[in-house]
Order: sequence, then C-alpha cells, then structure tokens
Amino acid sequence: MNALNVAEYVHTLGLQARVASARMASADAATKNRALRALARLLRENPAPLAEANARDLARAESAGLPPPMVDRLRLTPKVIETVAQGCDQLAAMPELIGDIVGLQQQPSGIRVGRMRVPLGVFGMIFESRPNVTIEAASLSIKSGNACILRGGSEAIESNKALAELVGRALAEAGLPPEAVQLVATTDREAVGQLIAMPEYVDVIIPRGGKGLIERISREARVPVIKHLDGNCHTYVDDPCDIAMAVAVADNAKTQKYSPCNATEGLLVARGVAAEFLPLIGRIYADKGVEMRGDAEALALLAAVPGAKVQAATEEDWSEEYLAPVISVKVVEGLDEAIAHINRYSSHHTDAILTRDHMHAQRFLREVDSASVMVNASTRFADGFEYGLGAEIGISTDKFHARGPVGLEGLTSLKWVVLGQGEIRQ
Amino acid sequence: MNALNVAEYVHTLGLQARVASARMASADAATKNRALRALARLLRENPAPLAEANARDLARAESAGLPPPMVDRLRLTPKVIETVAQGCDQLAAMPELIGDIVGLQQQPSGIRVGRMRVPLGVFGMIFESRPNVTIEAASLSIKSGNACILRGGSEAIESNKALAELVGRALAEAGLPPEAVQLVATTDREAVGQLIAMPEYVDVIIPRGGKGLIERISREARVPVIKHLDGNCHTYVDDPCDIAMAVAVADNAKTQKYSPCNATEGLLVARGVAAEFLPLIGRIYADKGVEMRGDAEALALLAAVPGAKVQAATEEDWSEEYLAPVISVKVVEGLDEAIAHINRYSSHHTDAILTRDHMHAQRFLREVDSASVMVNASTRFADGFEYGLGAEIGISTDKFHARGPVGLEGLTSLKWVVLGQGEIRQ
Repeated sequence: MNALNVAEYVHTLGLQARVASARMASADAATKNRALRALARLLRENPAPLAEANARDLARAESAGLPPPMVDRLRLTPKVIETVAQGCDQLAAMPELIGDIVGLQQQPSGIRVGRMRVPLGVFGMIFESRPNVTIEAASLSIKSGNACILRGGSEAIESNKALAELVGRALAEAGLPPEAVQLVATTDREAVGQLIAMPEYVDVIIPRGGKGLIERISREARVPVIKHLDGNCHTYVDDPCDIAMAVAVADNAKTQKYSPCNATEGLLVARGVAAEFLPLIGRIYADKGVEMRGDAEALALLAAVPGAKVQAATEEDWSEEYLAPVISVKVVEGLDEAIAHINRYSSHHTDAILTRDHMHAQRFLREVDSASVMVNASTRFADGFEYGLGAEIGISTDKFHARGPVGLEGLTSLKWVVLGQGEIRQ
Repeated sequence: MNALNVAEYVHTLGLQARVASARMASADAATKNRALRALARLLRENPAPLAEANARDLARAESAGLPPPMVDRLRLTPKVIETVAQGCDQLAAMPELIGDIVGLQQQPSGIRVGRMRVPLGVFGMIFESRPNVTIEAASLSIKSGNACILRGGSEAIESNKALAELVGRALAEAGLPPEAVQLVATTDREAVGQLIAMPEYVDVIIPRGGKGLIERISREARVPVIKHLDGNCHTYVDDPCDIAMAVAVADNAKTQKYSPCNATEGLLVARGVAAEFLPLIGRIYADKGVEMRGDAEALALLAAVPGAKVQAATEEDWSEEYLAPVISVKVVEGLDEAIAHINRYSSHHTDAILTRDHMHAQRFLREVDSASVMVNASTRFADGFEYGLGAEIGISTDKFHARGPVGLEGLTSLKWVVLGQGEIRQ
C-alpha cells in the first residue's frame, strides 16, 4: 500500500469501528459474555493455525537477528494461549458494568437525575511485540461494549492476524459485528499517524510501549490519549517504622523484578532510622548485586557494607527510571522532605511510605501527587490484577479521566440520565 | 508587553499556580470554606471599587460601539454581585469532596485498595465577556482544592482585575496562597497560546465562548480540554405518548429561551401521533413566531396552521444549532428511526424522548449517545444547577473524563490508595 491507500484503509477501519460501536454499546451482557466464552474456546481449539502463524513471525525475527529476549516475547506458547483464554473466561464471569445507573436523585423541579455507565465508543490501541495483548485488548473491548482498532508490532503481524481472525469468529458466533475488533493488517508506519488523527471515529488512543513511541503519540494525537510515560517509583522509610518490615518491603519493591514500571527506583530514608535501616537493606542489595547511588549521608552508611556497589548520586539519578539492578538512596530529615522530594522527582506513578505513624501515613496519602500512594506495602502491587480490576488495559500516569491501573471502568464514561413526568423549566 | 514578555509572564503564572496547587490540595475543608465566605463578604463590602472598575470597562465598550446586549453582559450590577456572593456562600456550605476514599476493599494479597478523590491540580479557564465568571471559576477552584489561571475577555479586563484582587485578599485572609487564583492581567492574545501549551504547569483547559474560540483551543492545546462545542438538542415525540404533556414539554424545550445550548433545535415526531400532535405544537410555535423547517410530511401538517412560518428543511437544517426562534421538524417511523437520526445529527449534548412506552424509554436512554438523555422532560433541564451539582464550571460535549454539566467533581480525579501491613509481592 502507498501512503494514500494506507490512510484510506485506516479511515475505512475507523468508519466500520464507529458503526460497530453502536451495536456493541447496546449489546446485552449475555451476548457479550457469549462472545468472550466463544473466544476462549476458539483459542483452545486452534493450536495449529496459531502455531503456524507464530512460527512465521519467529522465523522472520530470528533471521532478522532480533535478540533472544525479544524473540521470546513473540512466542505464543500453549501456556500463553491458555492464559489469555482463561482471561476471556474470567471477563465473561465478571459483573456487567454497562447500563448501570448510579446516584439517581430527585431534584427540586421533580426530575430524577442520575448517571449511566456507557462505553467510550471506539478506542485505538498501539502496542509492541507480545501478541497476547491482541486478545487482552479485544476481550476488554468486548466486555466494556466498545469497538477497537488494534495496531500491534510489525514483528508479530502474522500471529496477530491469526488471533484477530479468531476474535472475529467469536464475535460473529455471538451475533455481534466482527468489525467491533479490527486489526490494522499493515505494518506501514503511516497507519499509526492516521489512527491517532481521526476524532470522528476514534474516541481515545491507548499506546503501550517504549517512551519514544508514547511521546510521539502524545504529541501528534488529535484525540485523548491514556498513556503510561514512565515509572520512577519511591519507597520512603519513615521514622518511626517497623525496621524488619521496612527491609522486607524495600527489598521486594526493588528486587522482586527489575523491569516492571512499578519497581522502586528511589529509596528515601528518614535520618532517625538511617543508621539502623541502611546497613540492613544495603547487605541485601549487595548480595543481589544492586548498585546503590546515594547522597553523602547514605553513602557513608552503605560504603561500610561488605561487597556493596556504591557511588555518589548525581542530580539526574533522582529522576531516573533504571528498570535495572540500580537504586538511588537519599537520607531525608523526615516526612516533609520526603514528600517534597517525591513530588519533585517522581513520575507520579506509585510511591509508598513505610511507617508506624498514623498522621504521617495520612499526610503521605493526601499530599503525594501520584496515581498510586501506598502505606506499608511494596510498590510492586501497583497493577490492575493486584487491585482487583480483573484485567488491565494499561496504567495511566495522567490525571485526567483515569489514573494508575486502567481496567474496564477506564474504558467507560458516565452520561446523565433524566427521568421526568412532563416537567418543564420555569 | 511584547510576545516574549507575554510568554514569560504566563509561564511565571504557571509556575506560581503549580506551587500554590500543592497547598490547595492539602488544605482542609474549613480553611477553603473560610476563604469562600471571606470572598462573599468582600464582594458585598466593596461595591465602590467594583463599580469604578466596571464603569471603565463599560465606557470603553460603549465608545468602541459594542452592541447594547454585549455591553449589558459586561455590567456588574449589585444584583449580579449579590448572586455570585451567594454562590460562594453556597459552595462553602456544600460537603467537602477532596480526600474522600471510596471502594476500599481487601485484596487476596492482604492489601486494602481504594480510591481517593483529589484535585486535578491547575486548570486554565478562558472565557469571554461576563466578568461574574471570574468569581464562579475562582470559587469552584477553591472548593475543589485546585489552583487556576483565568483569562477573561479583554472588554472586561478592569472588572476582572478588581474581582481577582478580592479573591486574592480572601485567600490570604484564610491563610491560603493568593497565587491559587491568578488572572492573566494582559489582553494580549499571545497569552492564550502560552496558557494552553504548558503541560508542566496546567493540567486542563476549560474554554467557554464561541465555537471559533473553542475550536482554536482544541486544535492548539497541548493539555486536555473540557469543552463545549455546540448544542443541537432533540425532542422526540414517541407513539404512544401523552399528547398534552408532549405539547407542553416541546413548547418549553424550544421557546422558554432561545439562546441556551440546551434549547431543542430538532423536533422528531412518530408517524402515529403526528396528525394529532403537530397541529397543536404548530399553533403554539406560530403564536410565538417560531419558524418551522420540516420534511414533506411535517410540512403538510404544519402548513395548515394559521399564521405558521414554515419552509422545507434542507440537509443542513438537521445539524443546525439555531439558538433562535427556528426549529427543524421531522416525522419518523418510530423509535429506531428517531435514535438513528439523533445519533447521526445530534451534537451529543442533550436529547429527550416523550413517551408512555417503558421499553422505548429504556432503549432511548441506553442507545442515544449523548451527554444527557431524558425521558419526559424538557431539554432545558440540562444544567449543573438543575442536576443538583450546586455549581457548574461548564458543560462538556466530550466523552472523556466528564460528560455534560461539569461541577466540582469534574475538577477532581481519583488516585489509588493502598493500605498494607508490610505485604510484599510474591
């Protein structure tokens, strides 16, 4: 396809999605759940076509010399397929949220006014590598009564096409329009530019991927974007706190996994507990090979730990999202300095306080301006599943519409409902 | 100021607003309410400086030859001042919404997860003429714990400065930062361009004004916009319905006032009731001088009404927001055609069905994709006060974040709160 044809093609997808979205919005719960269960069944019944398509992607990736971890992320193993199939079944079992009317109250004029939960309409999702995201996005879209247009990574195009074909069959089986979930079937980059600039057809764009992609989309999109920019998360060890608990949580928050966005990247320690706490956590980090970049006070305490990899933190370290076995460490006077530091350097994703002081906990929750604020828990909990959302379409670092983990509710909106008996405005 | 100085000046306002917003977010309810009551008192105690500033605006407007209705909108009469003062007192009496934690539930890991209502941070408001909007926006901003930057119309600059000065005094009296509410004190148009392009300082822009202004801001803003584009509202008279009630409501929806965005611009009538209903409403519209632009079927019934101003509707009429004594009229087969017509031509602001049929009412509520959907009530009720919001910062025709009348809640967001006892992620 040339650029003009690509634009026209994506435009057609948009028009079809808009038409399908009206059918999806009015579909009842039983119908949508039937489509989700059919999708789970089709995923389990079709290992061969999925494996063949996936093999083509894998062969191409290997011959292109993609690094093995990248190739692994492309792999549609039986376990990956079973996991997404289970996800579809779980969504089918979740309560319906569309059509709910909340807060219906009678007003002085006599009218009763409430709000009804409705789908946003059409969302566009742009993601990289892992083909299982195709099913996650499709199933969330079906359950929430939206239509969606999916643009996966070019390296997974064959797998994504095979998965999208099953989604279309599942929708048709339930009597829903297959155009409710459409895959952009070209790897042309022009398609993204068109997808993010059709406010008449697409209500919101959800990008998932590297910072470069997200920034480009935020800059160029002509529709709202639910975006996750970065995760510079903090754990603040307060005075007073339960030191053993603080050590266990600070360990987990940094080292349970290094790559997730909710791993702690900055450790703040109140001066009153630093001499006791830092050598203990320093020993654990040293054992696990975590490099510590500290301010002078933290360094003095950490340098004495046998085997510790320490160095002086630079100003840049306070803002850094390492996604690696590295952590910045700073000794602070107390709560005020901790909150000020976090509000200045955090990416407003997730920040935690470990404390015994109830007033400090309350102030931290209230004053730290992040999507997730935690007391005495690991920042690694910032996740749609851990929060009980049942599923997650992404994590938002924005304040508008949805913050933090975004589940079904983030794909909906509330419209006003007015029930009258012939009232007129005086 | 030259363009560079204007940009620098607005940038400084942004920085100050961001700093003030942290103080506002953590302010307790009593403090914010003290500021609101102080503002009400100062408005009542200072008629002279307000009148003088306003007189300067009025003199300038008159000598510039502004049409009398425009000059009237600028006028800060004692009644206008008393109304906004009462609004401040009413906001002070409303329950606090910031800091509320909703839906706190324990998860399988042991953590308890809920959501806390928090201010958005800083909003920018761009509005035209009426200076009372300065106080409405300032008081909503204070109550919701936000900071704001207000850009009023150049023709009201002196009045706005005088009002903003009182807001600053009221904030200071309550111990809150006066920079929490700042007026852009220059009429330079460059200031708007800067205000809408500072995502680091401004979280959302709320424009109120003509369609040209809104479209320009939507196009150029680099932050989210809560916008009201236009109001092409419909009233659908269903079969079966209470004809007397339908006549009263269709009359009110069109003629109670012609200029508001929630006035009905399109009347749809089910074929089964058209012969009975249209001559009755036609007589009322004819008496009030409302011009009727109908399809052939409607015209045939309306043309027989003595004194009726009728003409054939063009395709453009179905999309038109008249804001005038004009209405488009179409006979439809029934509910399906009415919903299809509305979803195609409506501006998704407010649409109403007048019916006796419960199933039709349910389908209309569910399937019409508008910010407000009504059963047996006048579209003129689509308003923050009528909906019990206590105050209204604007009406949104978007789906994202907030739809329809936007009150205090629309200026807030929910952040996640996690309460643990040392839980770690497995």
